[in-house]
Amino acid sequence: MSEFESLLGSYQKRINQTLEGLLPSDDSILSEAMRYSVLNGGKRLRPILVYLSSELGEASHDSIDTLAGSIELIHCYSLIHDDLPSMDDDDLRRGNPTTHKKYDEATAILAGDALQPLAFELISNLDTSDSNKITIVNCLANACGYSGMVGGQIKDIHSKEINTVQDLDIMHSQKTGRLIQASLETSGILSELDQKDIEALNKYGEKIGLAFQIQDDIIDIESPSSISGKDQGSDINQNKITYPSIVGLEESRTRARELASEAKEILHLSHKNADNLHKLADYIVQRKT
Amino acid sequence: MSEFESLLGSYQKRINQTLEGLLPSDDSILSEAMRYSVLNGGKRLRPILVYLSSELGEASHDSIDTLAGSIELIHCYSLIHDDLPSMDDDDLRRGNPTTHKKYDEATAILAGDALQPLAFELISNLDTSDSNKITIVNCLANACGYSGMVGGQIKDIHSKEINTVQDLDIMHSQKTGRLIQASLETSGILSELDQKDIEALNKYGEKIGLAFQIQDDIIDIESPSSISGKDQGSDINQNKITYPSIVGLEESRTRARELASEAKEILHLSHKNADNLHKLADYIVQRKT
Repeated sequence: MSEFESLLGSYQKRINQTLEGLLPSDDSILSEAMRYSVLNGGKRLRPILVYLSSELGEASHDSIDTLAGSIELIHCYSLIHDDLPSMDDDDLRRGNPTTHKKYDEATAILAGDALQPLAFELISNLDTSDSNKITIVNCLANACGYSGMVGGQIKDIHSKEINTVQDLDIMHSQKTGRLIQASLETSGILSELDQKDIEALNKYGEKIGLAFQIQDDIIDIESPSSISGKDQGSDINQNKITYPSIVGLEESRTRARELASEAKEILHLSHKNADNLHKLADYIVQRKT
Repeated sequence: MSEFESLLGSYQKRINQTLEGLLPSDDSILSEAMRYSVLNGGKRLRPILVYLSSELGEASHDSIDTLAGSIELIHCYSLIHDDLPSMDDDDLRRGNPTTHKKYDEATAILAGDALQPLAFELISNLDTSDSNKITIVNCLANACGYSGMVGGQIKDIHSKEINTVQDLDIMHSQKTGRLIQASLETSGILSELDQKDIEALNKYGEKIGLAFQIQDDIIDIESPSSISGKDQGSDINQNKITYPSIVGLEESRTRARELASEAKEILHLSHKNADNLHKLADYIVQRKT
């Protein structure tokens, strides 16, 4: 394992401990379903982006943990809803039964519905200025909404209208890109970076967000489910339009690598201490799971 | 029509116009489903509470409109999800097909998922201090979450565990009471009321929230669907535990009236200009729809 992979591992451990403490722990079924849906391993890409961006500035350890946790709660809510029978109808997530399989549909919908406002509540209690808090609420709410995550998800389930790489780019930039960008941007706000640096993080996020998605599509074809934790070829089986299905596997690989390069170039121009964000861009397009 | 009913009508007109402007209006299916779910008549109780509380203090017309609209968006999201097949499985809402009947389940879930963050985004743009904005975000997020609205809804769908009036009170105070209280409280914050008055509004809200729910149960038994817009006796048909089913119709009526009196008494002690909130408490337990 490389030094960078060890760093990622330590951040994953840190966010998992944080999430343990942020989630409710009474003995209700709702609390249990929320914990089940969040504390299940997972790559924790968005928290890692929060941590790595915070290396560029100054923010308290606790507030960065809470921000990273809040964004992961939002991401987990979106996964629960995406997996529902009326959406992707997935039985497995990270190798375990999806929330509606483990509990039932109503409990899964409500676990998601409870995770989202918990994130906003936690942000309202961050240890930073009110001005920073409200800018973060604005950025995240916008990323979650009809022009962001939810807008991308509805395009994905009506994917008959997606035919070109451009359509696919728009869908993914809304569905996953916007929250990835918001992870970097809000961490920059909390770390008191200047506007120019926050904008650079945002653009870096746009590039790695797409690269991440293309690599996901490649993994779906190449990795057996024992490694990826999903059914191999599930996109093909569901007749999903993916980057490889439009431009082929080789061209997809090239595009992912180009996006990673562009991402690194954006940060190279404006940042010091961005070494780890550079390494992350490469890691994203080299990962097998 | 009484003068007070005319006032309620004018506030309903004002919130409907406000909501028109707050909702997205592109030609996407998501935007259409959001508008369909929100712009369908409805009593607009929560916006009315925001408007009436604002009469006790000072707040700009625009910011009160936006707050009232944001809270109604949250309420409408919760109705969409409550109506889903895996929850209450309702075909009609306010006399029209529910969102999942008009569109499909996935679109209904996502319309709800998009309304919630839109509310928080709008609040982050209110014309008031950052401190007020973040207090409002905190109050609303808490009211929506696992100890509030969503926590109450999961108790409602697992209603086998509800046997006593006390159980029913807890469920309803979470499911509907908390957002009603938050409507009054956040309007008080935006209207720059002092802490004592905000607390009085909160307690008033606790009382009228329960009174509203008891009256809803009574209406379900007494009003034909042509008046209520719901199926008459739908609670009985679904074997739902209600106030009348535990303590009988007459005792339910008495309790609703007592709660309205208590609500008025709380505001009587600490407020001037609370006449309309007094009238509302009476109106809530006298309404037939």
